[in-house]
Amino acid sequence: MSNPFFKNQGPFKISQILNSLDLNLKFSNKDSEIKDIKDLTSSTENDITFFHSNKYKDVAKKTKASFCLTSEAFKKELPINCTPIIVDNVLVSTAKITSLFYPDSINDNFDKTVLNITETEFKDKVSFGKNVLIGKNVSIGKNCKIGHNTIIEKNVIIGDNCSLGSNNIIRNTLMKSNIRILDNCVIGKHGFGFFPIKNNNLRYPHIGIVLIEDNCEIGCGATIDRGSMSNTIIGKNTYLDNQIHIAHNVKIGENSIIAGQVGIAGSSIIGNEVKIGGQAGISGHLNIGNNVEIGGGSGVIRDIPDNTKVMGYPAKNIKDFLRDNK
Amino acid sequence: MSNPFFKNQGPFKISQILNSLDLNLKFSNKDSEIKDIKDLTSSTENDITFFHSNKYKDVAKKTKASFCLTSEAFKKELPINCTPIIVDNVLVSTAKITSLFYPDSINDNFDKTVLNITETEFKDKVSFGKNVLIGKNVSIGKNCKIGHNTIIEKNVIIGDNCSLGSNNIIRNTLMKSNIRILDNCVIGKHGFGFFPIKNNNLRYPHIGIVLIEDNCEIGCGATIDRGSMSNTIIGKNTYLDNQIHIAHNVKIGENSIIAGQVGIAGSSIIGNEVKIGGQAGISGHLNIGNNVEIGGGSGVIRDIPDNTKVMGYPAKNIKDFLRDNK
Amino acid sequence: MSNPFFKNQGPFKISQILNSLDLNLKFSNKDSEIKDIKDLTSSTENDITFFHSNKYKDVAKKTKASFCLTSEAFKKELPINCTPIIVDNVLVSTAKITSLFYPDSINDNFDKTVLNITETEFKDKVSFGKNVLIGKNVSIGKNCKIGHNTIIEKNVIIGDNCSLGSNNIIRNTLMKSNIRILDNCVIGKHGFGFFPIKNNNLRYPHIGIVLIEDNCEIGCGATIDRGSMSNTIIGKNTYLDNQIHIAHNVKIGENSIIAGQVGIAGSSIIGNEVKIGGQAGISGHLNIGNNVEIGGGSGVIRDIPDNTKVMGYPAKNIKDFLRDNK
Repeated sequence: MSNPFFKNQGPFKISQILNSLDLNLKFSNKDSEIKDIKDLTSSTENDITFFHSNKYKDVAKKTKASFCLTSEAFKKELPINCTPIIVDNVLVSTAKITSLFYPDSINDNFDKTVLNITETEFKDKVSFGKNVLIGKNVSIGKNCKIGHNTIIEKNVIIGDNCSLGSNNIIRNTLMKSNIRILDNCVIGKHGFGFFPIKNNNLRYPHIGIVLIEDNCEIGCGATIDRGSMSNTIIGKNTYLDNQIHIAHNVKIGENSIIAGQVGIAGSSIIGNEVKIGGQAGISGHLNIGNNVEIGGGSGVIRDIPDNTKVMGYPAKNIKDFLRDNK
Repeated sequence: MSNPFFKNQGPFKISQILNSLDLNLKFSNKDSEIKDIKDLTSSTENDITFFHSNKYKDVAKKTKASFCLTSEAFKKELPINCTPIIVDNVLVSTAKITSLFYPDSINDNFDKTVLNITETEFKDKVSFGKNVLIGKNVSIGKNCKIGHNTIIEKNVIIGDNCSLGSNNIIRNTLMKSNIRILDNCVIGKHGFGFFPIKNNNLRYPHIGIVLIEDNCEIGCGATIDRGSMSNTIIGKNTYLDNQIHIAHNVKIGENSIIAGQVGIAGSSIIGNEVKIGGQAGISGHLNIGNNVEIGGGSGVIRDIPDNTKVMGYPAKNIKDFLRDNK
Repeated sequence: MSNPFFKNQGPFKISQILNSLDLNLKFSNKDSEIKDIKDLTSSTENDITFFHSNKYKDVAKKTKASFCLTSEAFKKELPINCTPIIVDNVLVSTAKITSLFYPDSINDNFDKTVLNITETEFKDKVSFGKNVLIGKNVSIGKNCKIGHNTIIEKNVIIGDNCSLGSNNIIRNTLMKSNIRILDNCVIGKHGFGFFPIKNNNLRYPHIGIVLIEDNCEIGCGATIDRGSMSNTIIGKNTYLDNQIHIAHNVKIGENSIIAGQVGIAGSSIIGNEVKIGGQAGISGHLNIGNNVEIGGGSGVIRDIPDNTKVMGYPAKNIKDFLRDNK
């Protein structure tokens, strides 16, 4: 998949890449042109990749990338076609190289390119309120409404029959059709991803987008962050109540219902037809199956299989919860 | 009570009503005019009502309505004056008929009728900030302040000496006097009420309002949804801290204090002089008595009698909570 | 420290102060001029102070203040230089006298003094969006960005290289350099501090500020209240995720990481290098040490020593939590 929103500034010579990491390595192939940075699996011979955990040993052996950011301990796993570049911290270096290819993905300053909608092509095809602002690289389908003070920053695609309320801020987002966004939402901002470094944290790039499928409703005050290396997804006909926080890389299935003030931490995957009660929280990197019900106020810290009802903190089978709390 | 904000588009002939449900029933009285849809108790002979649960058997026997949306199982309970209309899903059909009478109640698109306050009658009687917008059917009392970018959409009544901050969005709301609304609140939007239908949920109408009594304070970032068939109410001199979510039909008593990030789910009733600590959550359809204290972080899933202190998840008597968690 | 933002309207004669409390006491020194109201320790001979709890007996004995609001029970602890003023409720009287000296600190109406940034000195030195408003007594450093619809109300100092997003409302705040504020935040509003009085609560003044140190990031939808008698502080290089609530007088150390939807109640002190997981809540007036980790969803109701990991509600050592919840 080519990235719909973040422009790749490559190719770069491998010598430029090494310079940007302050590395002084000598490679015979220093003039090699590198077109992109990708994960181990999707890399081709023109890409650089990264390998930082034993978990990825098997895919590392088969990578087609020509170069790989890695550590002394892992370099022996790489195939002969892939030259290891040994760095102190693989993820920090990966962030730096991603920023080199996609400089716009790290910088979430306000969008200076916006115009008042009355100065754009949309003035005759969209129903809009006062003080609506539209950035570059925006497309809007038929029969859409955009409320007062809403800001569609750069890199937004909106399908047909969408109704956006007032005071929303949206960027780096692909919305399908028949979607309602209520008021005061911030959608498509970078997630809470950075490397903690004393006195000067290092943000890593977020080159993913937010993808909202057909027929969704997003309640007031939502924050839905875009993904870092993958996308944040809200599945078809899923409804979110007010004051919900969806972190980066989260994927929610179809026909799910999420009540007020729920928070879902980064990279968790939620199935189809899931119901989540108010104020529940779901930790990061979890798998929540299909047809799961999570009681209000629950704190979910483990995966949940399909067709299960849970409640509690930590969340457990709802029968156990009710028995233990008679 | 006639509805102050939502205009009744009736009367409709019963044949029109049957058509809107795609029903092909034959009644001798097909030209009867129906003026409104009401619950079993408040209906008169010109109204249609609905009956979907055994819980309402006793009031069903006495309804004065001429027609009643119900199921095969319940029709025998209705009195002779009331013609049953058998439908597959009583609540879905009720929602459809309510939408027929009150089409504006289902549609919460941004209010296109607003004008900049400088173009309205309020420009000389209200102290206002930049970019304040005012919709139709709004009245504002003496000595009021409205901050920057605040949008008073249609159907809002504001009493005397009210101070509204900036970036608020308010509709379908009746505010008494001496009220402070801080910043970034959304008040009067429809609640999170809909029928889950695969791939295409059906929203039900919200014909209630938000009623805020004298001397209240509403903190920053609140979302207070209007009621569906009844009102959402904040009682006299009740103070809400920041980031609070109050769902539809909730009624909060007088002199209560609700700390930051609390959420109250739909249709719960909170008494007078209640104190609720930060981040506590209250499930829907509960009764919380007068003079109750709910500790911060609690998850309340059962009714609480008067004069009780609770804490925990699920919330229990605070002495038990502290003993169990020494 | 003199107060950078709230103008002291004193001095007042002690007779004026007694009048404002509706007290009819006779002092030989009724014409004494009082310059300020301060706590027991920092008062000088020109100040009035207050003493309402046994906890402060030792510092009361040494106060240099000439007058002290107190109760019959405590007056004997005061030194000879300090004339006791006996009142029914010390804190209510303290609030009234503070309001007398600092009338602006109790009134958080929207700032009527703001101008569009294009009408101010900042139009050539700041990179700004549409509809940016700037109040009185604002200074902004080099190379700053301010997004659309953001309102910098009165009494704000911003250092160099700060990037503010859109739809923010900021007042009474001192921001150092290299700070990012994302979108939809309200910073510097008064806290949730008032005396509950039946049918007519009494707000107390908030003369503190919000102080944000270098290199911080504040996520979308944050509410950070200013302090009442001291400041609310976010330490250097501390990052806050989205939808976080920081109450008045809270002090957070350096290099801390606070995930989404966390709430910290009034006057709690958080150390350096603290990590707080999503949706955790921290009660008021607690001390959280350095290098503490608090699991997501925790409810902290007791102090936590340095170098501790806790989780649960109430939060306990994480080993105990995981053992108890296998």
